[in-house]
Amino acid sequence: MAGLGIEDEAFIRGKVPMTKQEIRVLTMVKARISPTDVVFDVGAGTGSMSVEAALLADKGHVYAVERNAEGVSLIEKNREKFGVGNLTVVAGEAPAALKNLPDCDAAIVGGSGGSLSEILDEIAVRLKAGGRVVINCITIQTLAAALDYFRGHESEFSYEAIQVQINRLQTVGDYDMAKAINPIYIVTGEKKKTLFNRKI
Amino acid sequence: MAGLGIEDEAFIRGKVPMTKQEIRVLTMVKARISPTDVVFDVGAGTGSMSVEAALLADKGHVYAVERNAEGVSLIEKNREKFGVGNLTVVAGEAPAALKNLPDCDAAIVGGSGGSLSEILDEIAVRLKAGGRVVINCITIQTLAAALDYFRGHESEFSYEAIQVQINRLQTVGDYDMAKAINPIYIVTGEKKKTLFNRKI
Amino acid sequence: MAGLGIEDEAFIRGKVPMTKQEIRVLTMVKARISPTDVVFDVGAGTGSMSVEAALLADKGHVYAVERNAEGVSLIEKNREKFGVGNLTVVAGEAPAALKNLPDCDAAIVGGSGGSLSEILDEIAVRLKAGGRVVINCITIQTLAAALDYFRGHESEFSYEAIQVQINRLQTVGDYDMAKAINPIYIVTGEKKKTLFNRKI
Amino acid sequence: MAGLGIEDEAFIRGKVPMTKQEIRVLTMVKARISPTDVVFDVGAGTGSMSVEAALLADKGHVYAVERNAEGVSLIEKNREKFGVGNLTVVAGEAPAALKNLPDCDAAIVGGSGGSLSEILDEIAVRLKAGGRVVINCITIQTLAAALDYFRGHESEFSYEAIQVQINRLQTVGDYDMAKAINPIYIVTGEKKKTLFNRKI
Repeated sequence: MAGLGIEDEAFIRGKVPMTKQEIRVLTMVKARISPTDVVFDVGAGTGSMSVEAALLADKGHVYAVERNAEGVSLIEKNREKFGVGNLTVVAGEAPAALKNLPDCDAAIVGGSGGSLSEILDEIAVRLKAGGRVVINCITIQTLAAALDYFRGHESEFSYEAIQVQINRLQTVGDYDMAKAINPIYIVTGEKKKTLFNRKI
Repeated sequence: MAGLGIEDEAFIRGKVPMTKQEIRVLTMVKARISPTDVVFDVGAGTGSMSVEAALLADKGHVYAVERNAEGVSLIEKNREKFGVGNLTVVAGEAPAALKNLPDCDAAIVGGSGGSLSEILDEIAVRLKAGGRVVINCITIQTLAAALDYFRGHESEFSYEAIQVQINRLQTVGDYDMAKAINPIYIVTGEKKKTLFNRKI
Repeated sequence: MAGLGIEDEAFIRGKVPMTKQEIRVLTMVKARISPTDVVFDVGAGTGSMSVEAALLADKGHVYAVERNAEGVSLIEKNREKFGVGNLTVVAGEAPAALKNLPDCDAAIVGGSGGSLSEILDEIAVRLKAGGRVVINCITIQTLAAALDYFRGHESEFSYEAIQVQINRLQTVGDYDMAKAINPIYIVTGEKKKTLFNRKI
Repeated sequence: MAGLGIEDEAFIRGKVPMTKQEIRVLTMVKARISPTDVVFDVGAGTGSMSVEAALLADKGHVYAVERNAEGVSLIEKNREKFGVGNLTVVAGEAPAALKNLPDCDAAIVGGSGGSLSEILDEIAVRLKAGGRVVINCITIQTLAAALDYFRGHESEFSYEAIQVQINRLQTVGDYDMAKAINPIYIVTGEKKKTLFNRKI
C-alpha cells in the first residue's frame, strides 16, 4: 500500500498543474496496474501519476513521456524523492516518443497535446490484450475525442467513463465550508481479447 | 422578467462575497415571490438578492437586513443603480432588527451570523401561512441547523432541500474547461396553513 | 412571478422525460425572455418549458416544435391546464418546422434529434441581434456539437456554458440523504449585433 | 494491487446497499491501510470494504463488525469468494462489539446506527497514535455529527473531509449520457501523536 494515495504536498511541483490525490488514485484503479506491469504515462506533467504507478508496478517499469522541459525535470526530481528506480523519463512527444519503448500492460494519458487519436492508435498496437488505457480529460473536447475514438474502435476496445467532482471542506472558524475542485472525466478503454491477439 | 437573472457583473460589489446569478434565481423561485409580496432578506450582503426580489415584488416591498456597514452601503448603491424604490435597507442584526418591520409573505436568509434558530423563530411568527422561508447554506453547520429547525417544528413547517453545484466552462484556446463554483445548499421551509393561522 | 418555477408535479406528463424545475428556470433566465418576446422551443417534449416561457412572454408568443405525437398531445394538454393562449404547438421536425414561423427573440433547444447544427443554422438566421439561444444538453455529444458550433461561428455568436448538478435531500426517518439528479449542460449563444444587423 | 479496486459486480450482495468501487478505493486511501495493519470495519454491510482492506492488510487482520444478520452472512460469503483468511466477522453492535478486539491501526465506519459519537469514543482509545478513522457519511446528520466530534476532540484528532460525486456515462445509442450516483462525504480523523501516546 506504500505508494498508493501519496499526499499532494509530498510531490515536488513547479508551476506545472498536478492531478489531485483522489483523481490519481482512481486513475490507478481504473488502469488496474499490477506489480509486474510495464506502464506508459503519456503527458506525465510532474510525474505524480508515474511515481504512484511505479510504486504499484514495483517489479515492472513505468515510462513517463513528457515534452515540456520543466515537466521532465520535475519528474526526475520526484523519481529521486520517492526512490523509484523503475521509472524512466522519456523527453519527447507522443506518439513518436512511444515508438522505441517496449509494449505495455497499461497506459495512462494525462495530456495529449491535441494528438489524442494518434496517441491512442499507437497505444492500441502496443497494449496487451485485456490491458487498459485511462485518459484523464479536463476539457470537453478531449472527452468528446476519447469517446469518439472508442466508439470508432469498438471491435478493439470496450470503454467506460466517469466524471468525478470533489469538494473539500475547509475549516473557517466554527464552520466547515465546501471548496470545489474542478471536475474531471476519466475515460477507460479496455483492449479486447480478439482471436488475433490470443494467437500472439 | 426584467430583474430576474441579473448578471453578476451588473451589481456593485466590494469585498463582500456575492451569491452567483444561478443561485440567486433558484432562491427567488423557491421563495415563490409574487408581485405584491413583503419580503425579508436577512443577511443581505451586497443586496443582490434584495434587488432581484424587489424587481419581482414590484408592487410589494423588500426589507434588506444587514449588520455590516460595508454591506449596508453596497445595498444602498445597488438599490440606486437598479432604481428600485420598494427596497428599504435595515442596518442591524436579526432577529432584533426584524421586530419593527411589517409581517412578510416570504423570507430569504443569506446570512444568519450564528443565530439561525432565533431568526427562524421570529420569521415563523411573522411569515403568513403558506409563505416560504429560503435559507442559503454555505456551511455544513448552517445546513444541519436549518434541517434541525424544520425537523423540530414539523407542525408549523414542511421543508425541502437541494444542493446545487455549478461548473462554468471556460475557454482556453481551442478547449472548454470546467471551472467549479463552490456548491451551496438551499433549504426551503413552507409555513403550514394550520387551523390557528386560518382563524387569523 | 406567476409562472416562473412551476412545480414539476403540476405538469401533465406521460412517459416523455421532463426537464426538472431548477433546470427549467435557469434555462429561462439564460434565454432572457421578456414579456413581448417571440420564442421558439425546439424539441419541446411535454411543453413544460414552453408553458413557463409563455407565462414570461405573456404579451409575446411561444412556438413549441415537437416531432413526437405523444409530446404534441402533452403540450396541448399542458397549454390547456395552464391556460396559456399565447402558445402554438407545431407538430414537425426542426429545422424544417421553423420555416413558416415568424422570426424570434429567443430560442430554446431541448432536443435536436441529431440535427443540432442545422437547427442552429436556421435559428442563427431567424434570431434577432442580441437574442439568445439556449441549448440543454444531456449528452456529451450534444454538448460537444453545441460548443463546436459556436466556436465555428464566433463572428455571429458569443457563448457561455454551465454544468448544473442538483442533489435533492430526501427524508429517511431521522436522516436527510442526498438523492442525485442527472446533471445537465446549459449552453447559451448570444447573437452578436453585427454591422449588418445594426443597419436593420 | 490485487484487491484494490475490485469491480462492484464481483461482490455477492443481497438487498444490502453497497459502497461503490470509487468510494471504496478512496476510503482505503484515506485510511492509509498498510500490509501489517489491524483494521476495524464498523457497519461492514456486504463486507466489500472489509475484503478490500483485508487484501491490502494481507499480513494484518480485519474485523468486520455488523449487527444485521443478512449482512453477517454476506460478509462471510464474500470472505469465502475472495479467499481472505485474515478477515473475522463480528456479529454485534458497535461500540460494544469492539471491546474484545485487539487495538487497531486503522478504522472504517460505514454505518453507525445512530451511535457515531460512542463508536468514535471507543475507536479513539483503541486506535494507535497516527492512525486514521474514516467515516463514510451518506446523511447530513452523520456528517454533522462526525464534524462535531472532531471539532470537540481537537486535542486528540486532526480531520479533513471531502464530498465525492460521481457521474457514470451511459451509452444510449450514439450518445453518452451522465447517470448521477448519490454523493457521499468521507470524513477522516487522524489520531494525534500526543506526549501520552509517544510515551507508550
